[in-house]
Amino acid sequence: MFKIEDALNEIRRGTAEIIDEKRIEKLLTAYLEEGKTYTVKAGFDPTAPDLHLGHTVLIQKLALFQKYGGIVQFLIGDFTGMIGDPTGKSETRKKLDKETVIANAVSYKEQVFKILDPEKTEVLFNSEWIEKLGASGLVELTTTFTVARMLEREDFEKRYKSNTPIAISEFLYPLLQGYDSVVLKSDIELGGTDQKFNLLMGRTLQRTYNVGKEQSVLMMPLLEGLDGVNKMSKSLNNYIGVTEDANTMFAKVLSTSDDLMWRYYELLSSKTLDEIAILKTEVSNGTLHPKIAKEQLAAEIVTRYHNKESALNALEEFNKVHKQNLLPTDIESFEFEGPIWIAKALVDAKLEASTSQARRDIKQGAVKIDQIKVEDEQLQLQSGTYILQVGKRKFASVKVS
Amino acid sequence: MFKIEDALNEIRRGTAEIIDEKRIEKLLTAYLEEGKTYTVKAGFDPTAPDLHLGHTVLIQKLALFQKYGGIVQFLIGDFTGMIGDPTGKSETRKKLDKETVIANAVSYKEQVFKILDPEKTEVLFNSEWIEKLGASGLVELTTTFTVARMLEREDFEKRYKSNTPIAISEFLYPLLQGYDSVVLKSDIELGGTDQKFNLLMGRTLQRTYNVGKEQSVLMMPLLEGLDGVNKMSKSLNNYIGVTEDANTMFAKVLSTSDDLMWRYYELLSSKTLDEIAILKTEVSNGTLHPKIAKEQLAAEIVTRYHNKESALNALEEFNKVHKQNLLPTDIESFEFEGPIWIAKALVDAKLEASTSQARRDIKQGAVKIDQIKVEDEQLQLQSGTYILQVGKRKFASVKVS
Repeated sequence: MFKIEDALNEIRRGTAEIIDEKRIEKLLTAYLEEGKTYTVKAGFDPTAPDLHLGHTVLIQKLALFQKYGGIVQFLIGDFTGMIGDPTGKSETRKKLDKETVIANAVSYKEQVFKILDPEKTEVLFNSEWIEKLGASGLVELTTTFTVARMLEREDFEKRYKSNTPIAISEFLYPLLQGYDSVVLKSDIELGGTDQKFNLLMGRTLQRTYNVGKEQSVLMMPLLEGLDGVNKMSKSLNNYIGVTEDANTMFAKVLSTSDDLMWRYYELLSSKTLDEIAILKTEVSNGTLHPKIAKEQLAAEIVTRYHNKESALNALEEFNKVHKQNLLPTDIESFEFEGPIWIAKALVDAKLEASTSQARRDIKQGAVKIDQIKVEDEQLQLQSGTYILQVGKRKFASVKVS
Repeated sequence: MFKIEDALNEIRRGTAEIIDEKRIEKLLTAYLEEGKTYTVKAGFDPTAPDLHLGHTVLIQKLALFQKYGGIVQFLIGDFTGMIGDPTGKSETRKKLDKETVIANAVSYKEQVFKILDPEKTEVLFNSEWIEKLGASGLVELTTTFTVARMLEREDFEKRYKSNTPIAISEFLYPLLQGYDSVVLKSDIELGGTDQKFNLLMGRTLQRTYNVGKEQSVLMMPLLEGLDGVNKMSKSLNNYIGVTEDANTMFAKVLSTSDDLMWRYYELLSSKTLDEIAILKTEVSNGTLHPKIAKEQLAAEIVTRYHNKESALNALEEFNKVHKQNLLPTDIESFEFEGPIWIAKALVDAKLEASTSQARRDIKQGAVKIDQIKVEDEQLQLQSGTYILQVGKRKFASVKVS
């Protein structure tokens, strides 16, 4: 089926930190040798079902675990949503009612099942067991942890020291999140690096409540947005939304820098590490234009959230609109008086040795004007600016007056 | 019925602090003028129904309010009891089950209805509304208050600074106690000085939850125990228990110093301030022996928790056992050879001018040996030590060899 070491390499790919990797290795081994599955938990905010690729980094990793025997516990934190987020007193978030939470969950499923295997995914709502806890169960939960240890959490510590209000309810969320791991008996939990304290709480509470296991924790970095600097977010408008139309999605991927493209390959692509290594080599030795690598990534992403056909259409559409993007940057420019015969223009622009050679190439379909094949070898260029191209590599910019 | 100023004086009596006394005055006025009653809340721990007089200081004050139109909300904090006290991790207190809580409540009633008027008392259990809150209501409650403000509470601050663990649950108790005042719409809450933070939380939350009133707060000092120094407590064995037998109770009151007696008069007696002022004057000008004042206080307390007859019996029993207690401290001692005629002994001990006078006094019942009237004027004292007494004021200690 798979090699443990290969699986571990894919699991490690792009992660910020893994706690108790040994146990992950054991779980993989038990799956490989005995077919024993295990559970991989991740929690999601019920208020924001409009996912962008920043969210999918983690979901991709969940999908990876599904390849290696993981049953995903896709946990929607609706308990939190139904009481409203207390953070930031001035802008207290509206409570969500039950219907909204359910509607959001449906929307979630539509989006994540483009990545996750529904057969290996349990969609769960923590209100189910937290409401059952009742007031007394909740108070009991809070007896297990001290104020001082809670204030050790980095953001709490900062806020406390800077006199920024922390509502007492905010102390309850890490406990509730950890309690979810108690109830779900999760083997692994995934989250962002900003969630470290809460993820470790799961381990702590599983120990406190004698669950008989302590979850491994795998933290993913925050994905950079299209600017390559800030984390991807709606408010910074540097995001690619999962529900955006194919053309927008495609164009946004193509707008990334080459560095960011490789980052996105690492965190978003389903290509294996080996496949990506080959792509990188080809680009660096010049046998593959980086835009082609970007197009492949864009096509993969569009195919995931739409389909193959949409991806092909988006590629075509993109190239129609952004035709100049394929041109080398050191393209030479010429000015001619018009009208001028295409074959002559090709010779004068040093793309062809002779007009007869030019005519042969036109016949073979090797000549393009503005990326559109020239059919007529007698074509007269009227005044205007054109990109002439012969074959894949020879370009000239021609201004006809 | 009563004068507002008199009522206020009695209400102020012995208190450590009153917050918003103006409102109490308004409540008294509304009762006096329109017969409008109001609510006076006090919370009690369900784990310790074995009350001592330290607890009754507050209950006496509740009873006082009942005289002036107050309906007492006698609140048993069974929610707390059923989840166990989180304070002091090493010795986590056992949870109380429902039956124990109810049994304790019955025992409470037996004890407090010796002080409170049952007709003007509601016995309430906070589990009723706190369980209804559920996990989400409880979390919502915790959104209303910040960690920093909670850590301003004196004992929390001390413990936090000295790295003594504070369980997060301990942050919930003040909120729950305050929430009780929201649900009960209490007009006044009574408590010990150590409860100030929690009592004020009631005011805060009544404002937060728009109850339409903010309770006044009246704090009673902690009653000193029999040693006159430490607060009365079971563990220091300096207490008088409400359920102790009449004789023990009586003897314990009599064991107090004179200073402590006046403190107990202030905090425990139903005598008015005027009545107590008269007693004080009589004692200070020597017309009343302090022991008599102590006996009156003891008799009042025994009558309250037992009955008048028990009080009289206890007085008699006490004086049988502790006869020397009435003696002046400057009593003169004599030694005689025995046997010796009682009349001669009285003359030799300078209690009588002549044996004939001594015989007349014996006939009139004015002579006592060891506080027992002498009936036989021919009595011969055998060897032993005796307290001879003539009238109320003349004493001598006589050793007959």
